[in-house]
Amino acid sequence: MKTIVVVLATLLIACPAARSAQPPLRANGERVVQHLMALSEFGKNPQGGVSRVAYTDADRAGREYVMGLMRDAGLKVSIDTAGNLVGERAGTDIKLKPIVIGSHIDSVPEGGNYDGDVGSLSAVELAQTLNEHHIAMRHPLQVIIFENEEGIMLGSTAIGRGLDTARLNSVSQSGKTVRDGVRFLGGDPERIAESKRVPGSIEAYIELHIEQGGVLDQEHLQIGVVEGIVGIEDAEVTVEGIANHAGTTPMNQRHDAMLAAARFVEMLNRVVTGIPGRQVGTVGWIKAQPGAYNVVPGRVTLGMELRDLDAKRVQDMFEQIRAEADVIGRANGATFRFEQHSLSAPALTDPRLQAVIGESAKRLGLSTKLMPSGAGHDAQEMAHLGPIGMIFIPSVGGLSHAPKEFSRPEDIGNGANVLLKTVLGLDRPAEAN
Amino acid sequence: MKTIVVVLATLLIACPAARSAQPPLRANGERVVQHLMALSEFGKNPQGGVSRVAYTDADRAGREYVMGLMRDAGLKVSIDTAGNLVGERAGTDIKLKPIVIGSHIDSVPEGGNYDGDVGSLSAVELAQTLNEHHIAMRHPLQVIIFENEEGIMLGSTAIGRGLDTARLNSVSQSGKTVRDGVRFLGGDPERIAESKRVPGSIEAYIELHIEQGGVLDQEHLQIGVVEGIVGIEDAEVTVEGIANHAGTTPMNQRHDAMLAAARFVEMLNRVVTGIPGRQVGTVGWIKAQPGAYNVVPGRVTLGMELRDLDAKRVQDMFEQIRAEADVIGRANGATFRFEQHSLSAPALTDPRLQAVIGESAKRLGLSTKLMPSGAGHDAQEMAHLGPIGMIFIPSVGGLSHAPKEFSRPEDIGNGANVLLKTVLGLDRPAEAN
Repeated sequence: MKTIVVVLATLLIACPAARSAQPPLRANGERVVQHLMALSEFGKNPQGGVSRVAYTDADRAGREYVMGLMRDAGLKVSIDTAGNLVGERAGTDIKLKPIVIGSHIDSVPEGGNYDGDVGSLSAVELAQTLNEHHIAMRHPLQVIIFENEEGIMLGSTAIGRGLDTARLNSVSQSGKTVRDGVRFLGGDPERIAESKRVPGSIEAYIELHIEQGGVLDQEHLQIGVVEGIVGIEDAEVTVEGIANHAGTTPMNQRHDAMLAAARFVEMLNRVVTGIPGRQVGTVGWIKAQPGAYNVVPGRVTLGMELRDLDAKRVQDMFEQIRAEADVIGRANGATFRFEQHSLSAPALTDPRLQAVIGESAKRLGLSTKLMPSGAGHDAQEMAHLGPIGMIFIPSVGGLSHAPKEFSRPEDIGNGANVLLKTVLGLDRPAEAN
Repeated sequence: MKTIVVVLATLLIACPAARSAQPPLRANGERVVQHLMALSEFGKNPQGGVSRVAYTDADRAGREYVMGLMRDAGLKVSIDTAGNLVGERAGTDIKLKPIVIGSHIDSVPEGGNYDGDVGSLSAVELAQTLNEHHIAMRHPLQVIIFENEEGIMLGSTAIGRGLDTARLNSVSQSGKTVRDGVRFLGGDPERIAESKRVPGSIEAYIELHIEQGGVLDQEHLQIGVVEGIVGIEDAEVTVEGIANHAGTTPMNQRHDAMLAAARFVEMLNRVVTGIPGRQVGTVGWIKAQPGAYNVVPGRVTLGMELRDLDAKRVQDMFEQIRAEADVIGRANGATFRFEQHSLSAPALTDPRLQAVIGESAKRLGLSTKLMPSGAGHDAQEMAHLGPIGMIFIPSVGGLSHAPKEFSRPEDIGNGANVLLKTVLGLDRPAEAN
């Protein structure tokens, strides 16, 4: 009997196509949810959600917990010089490059329990499922839990593009410098360059994540197949008028920076919504000077950003906005000045990976939608190394970066299974697909 | 010879009508400007202008300097329990109520050398001129240098309406409580109620002031005859939307408090400028929450105010603005909440005093304009006691509350002479006018 089992296992390892004869392999969604709940204890807030900000005690404790899960899943775990957790599982074909999966477990202050965590724990679950079913993949598998994703994607930048070491000196939200934070997580900031990988060195990077928007939830769809991660351009805009007494300055003698700024906000909205597409544009902060009830503001500064998958469209919108701002300025006796920054270029996902993800979802009987990711993800940094794919599950009410962030257990299970099916699909030799 | 002079002086005192045979009496504008320059040393800023904030050392030193000028002008000087400087000159008819003139010498932080100072020193000059020419008035004359006018009109409120003693506990811009400040200037805060005067106890209050706006300057006019001091209503407006991710929230699913606020600012401007009149409306400060590039603002708070001579018009505009805000809110998935305050009711000047001021200017060959005061003045508090009148001189470029505040010497001389002629006009028996 023992001999037969060994022979069968050997057959499975040697011949993945033979798996189709087995009952379909399933990731254990309930276990992912149990692990999510356990992880949510690290940095738990009394009012719900977590504050597991990168480089805090809660972050490190959470990472140690996940490291334990990774070891339980049979992964060989190490911490790279950037402080990323890397879990490795050997493949059967030493000529093949690794398939990499993962996400992050750090949160924004007063964040939720799903952003990053769902993808991280589903990646660990994938390894655990393979292990429990004694399934070998042809490609090596790597599960990476990136460090300090929120806001700055530090760990994935170190792996993907390579980190500008000047950023080690910046102070992170934890209060620690990035250098101290990386060391705190077990990295080696002085050797952080060694964590960078060579372009072309990965077979694919696949990340499961909550949508963080309300599209899937509103349209009652189960899986988002991500077309790409939008590029972001932002600008600090300064509107210069002339400050004057709000009582003694007649309306027709004003150079009211507030009125010009208001017209700018409205114009930006009109430009962004005036063309078909899913581009977004936002004015997120604003400040008036001197900023008193009884003074016509002489200067208003505000922060705007534009996002789209198409970098040219973003530039075109920016140009139109600048041109229309000049017109608003002239009409209001004010001037506009832009300090524009390219925060990130669009990172498109690989069409082949999109197809494998879509096909995997379909085989699981799940509805899908091809959609952009409006938020940044570690995947965009991994795009420097090879093809990327992303899987979204619904965020109830579109809420994210908040204690009320929520994804349903069945959606988490669906996501974990699409991830599993996608990775196994990629692992199959071309002729087997 | 000595006898003749005495007889002549007696004649002048006994018979004001006899003055018309004399060369016209003139205030010494050059001396007013010299005193202005001397006063500007107290609290002088290296970059120009003064910071002579009420209750600071500079304020007290400046008041002591002016007290000296008042004594030199033959005034009997006292400090009332509110800390106001009161200079008295007896009249010839003990049945008559005092004609009161004056202004303030405290400044805003980084203010100019003209706001309040021109009227204060011209009032002292008037007493000095009368003294030098041995002219007696029928009415008693009082020159009052009010304390802490800027922002709160504390001294004039204590005299006019009576001060709510709770305000003694508030902390003034000097860092001192009002109680300590009043004591610092020589007042007696525990007996501040005694500074309040009885309605009907003054013949008139006349205040010369710089316009603080650009109307006279732009229209090349010399004297403003003030119709009244505008009433002010303000409100803190809270726009509630829903904060959400600026990348993942499609444009048509946003509850963008910033966009609703921008539409509000534009609407307020349209309402205020959409009807004929000189009413003004301003949004002077604004704040977005959470206030980051990458978050659609969930809440915007802003400060608005409306001013006009007609209280009903202000209320009508407020009602229209509230109604239109509701429409904007509904269209933008946001709500508007108003915390409205009546800061001051309009204070109309007395038509008879307007006529005397206008006639006085005309006799001096000066051009005039009937105009509202968009800024608040001590005169509005003195209106609780009797008829008020105000004289404006041009502010170059309309600048005020700034180091570059400037009024030309010839305009200051004109103002001082209109003040003198107006007071003498009021002092004349009705049949002599």
